[in-house]
This record gives sequence, structure tokens and C-alpha cells, in this order.
Amino acid sequence: MSLWMEGETVKMIDQRLLPEHFMIVDFTQVEEVAKAIRNMTVRGAPAIGAAAAYGMALAAIDGSDLGEAGRLLKAQRPTAFDLFFAVDHMLEELARGEDPVKAANDYVGSIVEKCRMIGEHGAQLIHDGAKVMTHCNAGALATVDYGTALAPLRMAWRSGKRFFVYVSETRPRLQGMKLTAYELWNEGIPSSIIVDGASGHFMRLGVDLVIVGADRIATNGDFANKIGTFEKAVLAKELGVPFYVAAPVSTFDFKMENGKDITIEDRGEEEVTVLEGKRIAPEGVTALNPSFDMTPAKYVTGFITEVGILKPREIHKVKEARI
Amino acid sequence: MSLWMEGETVKMIDQRLLPEHFMIVDFTQVEEVAKAIRNMTVRGAPAIGAAAAYGMALAAIDGSDLGEAGRLLKAQRPTAFDLFFAVDHMLEELARGEDPVKAANDYVGSIVEKCRMIGEHGAQLIHDGAKVMTHCNAGALATVDYGTALAPLRMAWRSGKRFFVYVSETRPRLQGMKLTAYELWNEGIPSSIIVDGASGHFMRLGVDLVIVGADRIATNGDFANKIGTFEKAVLAKELGVPFYVAAPVSTFDFKMENGKDITIEDRGEEEVTVLEGKRIAPEGVTALNPSFDMTPAKYVTGFITEVGILKPREIHKVKEARI
Repeated sequence: MSLWMEGETVKMIDQRLLPEHFMIVDFTQVEEVAKAIRNMTVRGAPAIGAAAAYGMALAAIDGSDLGEAGRLLKAQRPTAFDLFFAVDHMLEELARGEDPVKAANDYVGSIVEKCRMIGEHGAQLIHDGAKVMTHCNAGALATVDYGTALAPLRMAWRSGKRFFVYVSETRPRLQGMKLTAYELWNEGIPSSIIVDGASGHFMRLGVDLVIVGADRIATNGDFANKIGTFEKAVLAKELGVPFYVAAPVSTFDFKMENGKDITIEDRGEEEVTVLEGKRIAPEGVTALNPSFDMTPAKYVTGFITEVGILKPREIHKVKEARI
Repeated sequence: MSLWMEGETVKMIDQRLLPEHFMIVDFTQVEEVAKAIRNMTVRGAPAIGAAAAYGMALAAIDGSDLGEAGRLLKAQRPTAFDLFFAVDHMLEELARGEDPVKAANDYVGSIVEKCRMIGEHGAQLIHDGAKVMTHCNAGALATVDYGTALAPLRMAWRSGKRFFVYVSETRPRLQGMKLTAYELWNEGIPSSIIVDGASGHFMRLGVDLVIVGADRIATNGDFANKIGTFEKAVLAKELGVPFYVAAPVSTFDFKMENGKDITIEDRGEEEVTVLEGKRIAPEGVTALNPSFDMTPAKYVTGFITEVGILKPREIHKVKEARI
């Protein structure tokens, strides 16, 4: 578990320090949780949703204004839809008089179960001897447990299938290198880190499928995910490699018809020019740092969800499947 | 000038230390030059060719076995064709009784002049207000002076055109961030560094042309260049962005019909997992590090050479234009 609640305290692994340091931080105020979402102590769309649910529980325990708490949480990261979904879900549950801690724990428990189901459905796509490519971290750390993109790998591995994973390092924050490679190594799944620019090279040499996560999926199947995802999707199509997106239905934004209106978060240029506290770029030069990109639905082979694997045109059918 | 000869000493800027430190190193033995090629004190296909020419001059001055010196130099980097071309050219000149220093200086002078001509031809492609994307470093440092991919930018800028350059950082060694951004900044050309995975995102937002260098070009127009080039070429085609390769005719390998047989150099995994002396990857995990990739000719709009801009099918015509 990457975050949980003990009594009236929210606990989470500080993902910024992994894998060098394993530190658990405690929060008792919604403002602290909001800050942790902003500064990426917690990251990954489903885990951000879980943190938001716990943040709302803290606000309710405190007797804070829930509308204000919800707005504060939603303002921290613009792209991850689970954040908005979790806040709205908690507002409804709390309005119904549900116990705050129980409501948040139920929400987080449902994420874990959905990720397990994503793993069950997605594992069918991975055959023995396969070469799989993933990007960024859509593992247990990003999703409380199991992962989204990594859940199928975990389930396939535990069922005895043997395969190899290319992990693109995912500049600028290196979540592929630092989190995904670390999770796979802990699970014992053979993998190698590659630089992001080598994805096309290895796809041409032979990759059986690409699986990535998502931060927000529009009704037509356009989706936002970590910068670099769009490139992999285009390359996969060009080279005939199936390209899958693993996400719970809570990542689908049914108010959004297509991806044109998805807000892409621009983060500070220091994420690019500074690494681990040291400036790596020449003095004077600047960087642009969009944190996500949008991939049109036409590049997606299927969405691996807790209710099964969907084609983009089938997404509208699962609107009612959300919690 | 990134390398030159003074008396019987070869001098070169140690490119591994740029832009933090500007250090000039001296060599008087061909073995030292071979090592400098291997460890990337000098890098970039045309500059490697220049270093090899000077290395052959040192061998001739010493009275060393020239065949052996040539084989030693050629063994250092398998992909850059200029290395092979320069060694063979020097062997011919020395066999004809040419003075070693004069022959090497003539070769290097001809590279500089060719790069200037590449700049003249390529500058026509850049219009006022354009957005240009480049990858790795194909600038003055890579080519003795002017650059290949950067020469058109330099010439267009000096003729008064104003435009913007996206510089992809080029992991693992960050030559885009450390060398190209630095060269453009010194020239006063507005540019921003982007992570390699953001190239597709910015191409979709609007890029007018992509210009890259090349390490080896086959007769049909397939070419090898820094890892990440193939991805940009595929994205450019998909998004309708013209994609140009700037290289002197000495980078064309007319013995090679197509790119299938181009040797792609694999370098140590530490280039990926260690940055500036510090391990950045989790302990235990491994990396794969192909230094180049091969881009099929069908993705190339044109080759910008010293004799003009060629379509892939026109390459065979310039066989006789080499030195």
C-alpha cells in the first residue's frame, strides 16, 4: 500500500525519495494533503484520487468547509481526473451522512480491487516469452496497490508466465527508472531501463505490446498521460505493436467528449534543468516542461479496465459502471 | 574550431567537460587520438573524421605503420562513417607522398567549407518566424566549425531571419542540453530544451521543420544517427512536419545499399544509470544503451549536403562529388 489511514492520520510513502529512501509521512490536515499532491509526495492518477479521498475525510473530521476543501484539493493538479472524481464522490458520501474514514477507506479499497481486476483482464494479453514496454510508473505506488499498467504484468507473472519488460526512464522525473524498474525488480520480473528516445528502436526490434496508464480519458478515447506517451502510441501504430491503456473507469471523464480540452499541466523548467539538486543544463538556457501529452483514440488498441478490455468506441457503455 | 593542429601537436576541446569546463587537450600519438575518439573527448561524425585525419598525420610523423594506425582508429566507434572515410582518404594521400600535416589540414579545412555550404543551402528552408526542432548536437563542436544540422540555423540567423529552436535534450549523454543549447545560446538564437519524450507533443502544437545530423547514410537514404532520431522521423511524417538530415557527402557510405547492415554501437549501461558520477538508477536494475538508431529513407524529406538538397533517390548522383 502506498497510502492508508491509521486512526485519524493519513500516512503515505514519500515517493519523491524512492528508491534511495523509504520514508512514511503523516498528515492530519487537508491542507497538508493538498500540498503533498502538489509537490508529488503522492503521484499517479489513482493514488492522487486516494489521497484526495483521505484529504476530504480529514476535512470532515475537522469540521472544515467541505466545498472549500474540495476546491483546494482539485486545484493542485489539473490533469489527473481521479482527483476530481474522488473529491466529488466524497462530497456525495459525506452529504449522505457517511462516516468520513469509512467512506475514504471504501473508496481506496475499491481502487485496489479495481486494479486487481485490471490485472486479471490484462494478464490475458501477455503471453509466455512476450516483450512488453511500459512508460512512467503506473504501478502499485501510483495506485495504492497492484498498479494499472503494471497490474497485468504482476498477475501474468504470478500465474507463471515469463516475459521481459522495457521500462522507458521517463524524463524529466525518471519515474520509469526510479519507480517502475524498482517495482519490477522487487517482483522479480526481468526488465531493463531504456532512455525514452530508444522506445522506437526497440519496438522495431520486436515488442509484443505496450501498456501505459492514463491520467484522464475522454469519452471518445482520447487520453492524457505522462509526457512521452503520445510518441510511443504513434510508433506502436507505425510498427504494428498493440498499444493498451490500463485505467479504472474512474479515470474516464464522461463530461469530456474528446481530448482537445484536456488541460496539460506545465511544470517548472527546473524539473528538466536540475537533477537531484544539481543544475545539469548550461547557465542561461531555458526549458519547456509539459508534464503530460494527449494521445488521440485512433492510436489505442484497447483500454484495460476493471470491467474488461474496451475498444475506444465502447467507452460510453461503461458510464454506469463507475462506483 | 573544436580541434586543430599546432606544429606536430593535435589540440581538441574536451567535449565531455562542456559547458561547465572549457579545457583543451594535447595529443602527439595516434593511440591518444584513438582513445579520445573512444571516450568521446571528441564526438560528432565529421569531428571524429577530423580527429582521425589528425591521428593519421601523427602516425605518419612518427613513422608508425599506417595500416595499423588506420585499423586502430577505425576500431574505436563503429557507426560514424566519417571515421572510415577520413582514414581511407589519409591513407591515399600519404601513399601519394603528401605531407601529413598538410593532408590532414586540407581534409579538416574541407569539412569546415562543406559545413558552411550545408548552412548556405539549408538556410533557404528556414523562414522568418519558423519553429525548428533538432536533436543531439550536430553543431560546431561535432564538425570542427559551423555544424551540420546547426549550420543552416546559424546562416539563417546571420542573414537576419528570426526563429525558435526546440532542442531535445538527448539522453543519455545530454548532448542536446549541454552542447546544442549552449551553442545556440552563444549565437543568440532563441531556443528551449525539451525532454526527448516531448518532441511529439511540440510537433503537434506546430513545428515547421526538423533538422538532424547523421553518422552514416546508406545509398538508398536509410541513415544512422543518435538514438531518438528514428522516433522524431516517424512523428514528423505522421504529423506532416518536413524532416531534413544535414551531412556532408563524406557521411554517405556508398558501399552500403541500405541501412539494414549499419552497425549500431551499444555503449555501457552506466551512461544511462549514472549521471555526472552519481548513480541515479535503483541498485540492481539494468539498462540497455544503444547509442544510435536507424531511420529508413521513407521518413526523410531531404538531405542537406554541400552540393545541395537531395531527395533519398538522388543520393547515388553525388558519389563522384566526394573530395
